[in-house]
Amino acid sequence: MNAAVLTIGDELLQGFTIDTNSSWLGTTLLPYNIRIRKKLTVGDNLNDIISEAQNILDDKYDYLFVTGGLGPTHDDITKEAFRQLLNDELIFDENYYNQLIHHFEKRAIKIPNSNRSQAMLLKTADVLPNKNGTALGMHLLFKDTHIFIMPGVPGEMREMVKNHILPNYINKTPTENIITIRTAGIMESHLAEKVTVLMEKYSKSFRFAFLPHFSGVSFRINRVDKNENLLKIKDEFFQAMKPYAYGINNDTLEEVLGLKLINNNFTIATAESCTGGLIGKRLTDIAGSSEYFLGSVTAYSNQLKTSLLDVPNDIINTHGAVSEETAMEMAKGVRDKTRADIGISTTGISGPGGGTKTKPVGLVYIGVVTPENSMVKKYNFSYGRNIHREMTTTAALNIARLAIEQN
Amino acid sequence: MNAAVLTIGDELLQGFTIDTNSSWLGTTLLPYNIRIRKKLTVGDNLNDIISEAQNILDDKYDYLFVTGGLGPTHDDITKEAFRQLLNDELIFDENYYNQLIHHFEKRAIKIPNSNRSQAMLLKTADVLPNKNGTALGMHLLFKDTHIFIMPGVPGEMREMVKNHILPNYINKTPTENIITIRTAGIMESHLAEKVTVLMEKYSKSFRFAFLPHFSGVSFRINRVDKNENLLKIKDEFFQAMKPYAYGINNDTLEEVLGLKLINNNFTIATAESCTGGLIGKRLTDIAGSSEYFLGSVTAYSNQLKTSLLDVPNDIINTHGAVSEETAMEMAKGVRDKTRADIGISTTGISGPGGGTKTKPVGLVYIGVVTPENSMVKKYNFSYGRNIHREMTTTAALNIARLAIEQN
Repeated sequence: MNAAVLTIGDELLQGFTIDTNSSWLGTTLLPYNIRIRKKLTVGDNLNDIISEAQNILDDKYDYLFVTGGLGPTHDDITKEAFRQLLNDELIFDENYYNQLIHHFEKRAIKIPNSNRSQAMLLKTADVLPNKNGTALGMHLLFKDTHIFIMPGVPGEMREMVKNHILPNYINKTPTENIITIRTAGIMESHLAEKVTVLMEKYSKSFRFAFLPHFSGVSFRINRVDKNENLLKIKDEFFQAMKPYAYGINNDTLEEVLGLKLINNNFTIATAESCTGGLIGKRLTDIAGSSEYFLGSVTAYSNQLKTSLLDVPNDIINTHGAVSEETAMEMAKGVRDKTRADIGISTTGISGPGGGTKTKPVGLVYIGVVTPENSMVKKYNFSYGRNIHREMTTTAALNIARLAIEQN
Repeated sequence: MNAAVLTIGDELLQGFTIDTNSSWLGTTLLPYNIRIRKKLTVGDNLNDIISEAQNILDDKYDYLFVTGGLGPTHDDITKEAFRQLLNDELIFDENYYNQLIHHFEKRAIKIPNSNRSQAMLLKTADVLPNKNGTALGMHLLFKDTHIFIMPGVPGEMREMVKNHILPNYINKTPTENIITIRTAGIMESHLAEKVTVLMEKYSKSFRFAFLPHFSGVSFRINRVDKNENLLKIKDEFFQAMKPYAYGINNDTLEEVLGLKLINNNFTIATAESCTGGLIGKRLTDIAGSSEYFLGSVTAYSNQLKTSLLDVPNDIINTHGAVSEETAMEMAKGVRDKTRADIGISTTGISGPGGGTKTKPVGLVYIGVVTPENSMVKKYNFSYGRNIHREMTTTAALNIARLAIEQN
């Protein structure tokens, strides 16, 4: 099944809003065997919408997903365009208008006159309810193309697709043909070596792709032959990628680490320098993290490394703030101060300033102390300040994960 | 001047990669009076590329920007498509191939055979050098349409536009017609009240838009009449939006706060609970923040609020960890411990769990203590865990900014 996506809005063309709707539709529709062949964005211009929609209908796609241009301030240009294109009629839905009035009354707001247009609907359309907003969606069938007209607000569009379009119009059991294994702490080329044999073995029925990010390398498995068992093959690759593989699809390191902490009944605390609080932030992105995350100390200045984390002054004076020894003392210090089972630390030079010949920008030491082990790892991530901090955080979370596995 | 953007790649259609190139092009070209009228994405499919590019050329745009499909693994499908479409010829650039070999040698890698294709160029094209990668760009003139073919990697594409296309092919002085004022700490409707009179006064020569985000409301000023003075009008609106207006265009609160701290020779430290380190992270996003940021303590557990921040036990027992009193003690505590001039604190319930009838999910207290003032503000941001944390962080940075202004 082929689909086209038409997104409407000057904001999208001028670049003030980044279109995330069409990529969300891409990944969401894939398991339903609906492939987007074409994505198109036009402005709030009646003729442009009509002519581009006409082209898409001429090309006989199975589905056309339209988003945007349904707000009360946009003069409902999307509806008017499809009215003209399909030679349809706009009718006023008294019943829905009363709901709208009620909706505004509950918020003690007088309904703006402009919202009247939101109760105008194409006569031949069936309505797609909008749980999260005031603009209704519409479904139309033109020749063999199903047209879905939806609001551009991502939360409203997604709810409409998940709760109305997929169950009522697509009505198929989704088949996942794609699974992504997430890894951390290994380079693409080394990861590839570990699975070369497996990739050759399964090359007829699957397609594979390595997707390197700053946060780790993902490995995508795409089933081509529907008779093959995707999960079984995923397990084989996952096994071969251990201990670097930590999860699949949308799993995050902080989630996986959180589960390991809970399973081992461990608590954790962090002592951060160059990461400035980002490790704590990522650990607490996870709901329920107060179960295992006690807290963190960001000691940006040397004084605070001593006063808050008990790093001995002479360690800093002898080895420097960015050193293996200081990283170790910071991890021990925060572990002792907070009585956590595991202490993590980072100290490094994120740049752009602060580098020297022996300690260049990018250098970072990451310390981890568990009840059984303690270690410091040295890295050089020289990719600019923000990526340095992201990579350091990811490495720290991954080292903590591996330390618990080895415990 | 009208432009179209054609982005190429299965990854974009399937949604595994979000297209940020076209929005970057949108905002970058706007000051050059080049308006993108149409954005189009197709997959790595020769026929699709040819037929869609043909449509665009038929429509006689002034510019066509093409990105993607130039990598060595993509079989150079973009070049082949334009070769067929323009009835051109692909020629091998010996000189560039030698540069490529040298590039790989420097990295002690044998050049993969596939990279040979990257030295194939369209005969009628002039070359756009690529400082950040191995795929060259190309410029072609077809009838009156300038075609720019560029790599899909954002860093490579942006460099090519900024350093080659704008100076050599567009060759105009950019005129900014759009300026955005950033505000924080005020709702859209209240901000609107403050500038109703000004908006009416300038409604003939300017267009205005309110853009609400979780992080604050932006106000966009779009000059329609070229004879008007954009900066003067911006200043008038900025003045009317004080003290909520904190910057323009891409200014961030953490930058503006950082400058205020430097100008006042102040240092800052944070005591975080529900924000988990995010305030420290955002403050240290700014290069050079070690000038004023001393450090932060994230005390997620009550024990750490007492042991690390000296919050008296009976304050927590009497008023609770999420209370005005605890927020105040946390801000004072971190200020004393770190000897910073300014202490900020947050304590709240980000959810999804942890709420009670009297202290619901979303409740948060933000404390700020300066040499002259101390205050705690109470908010209820009930929009889900991550947005709660972002909004709390933004509010805290903004309160600190206002506290310094009042100092």
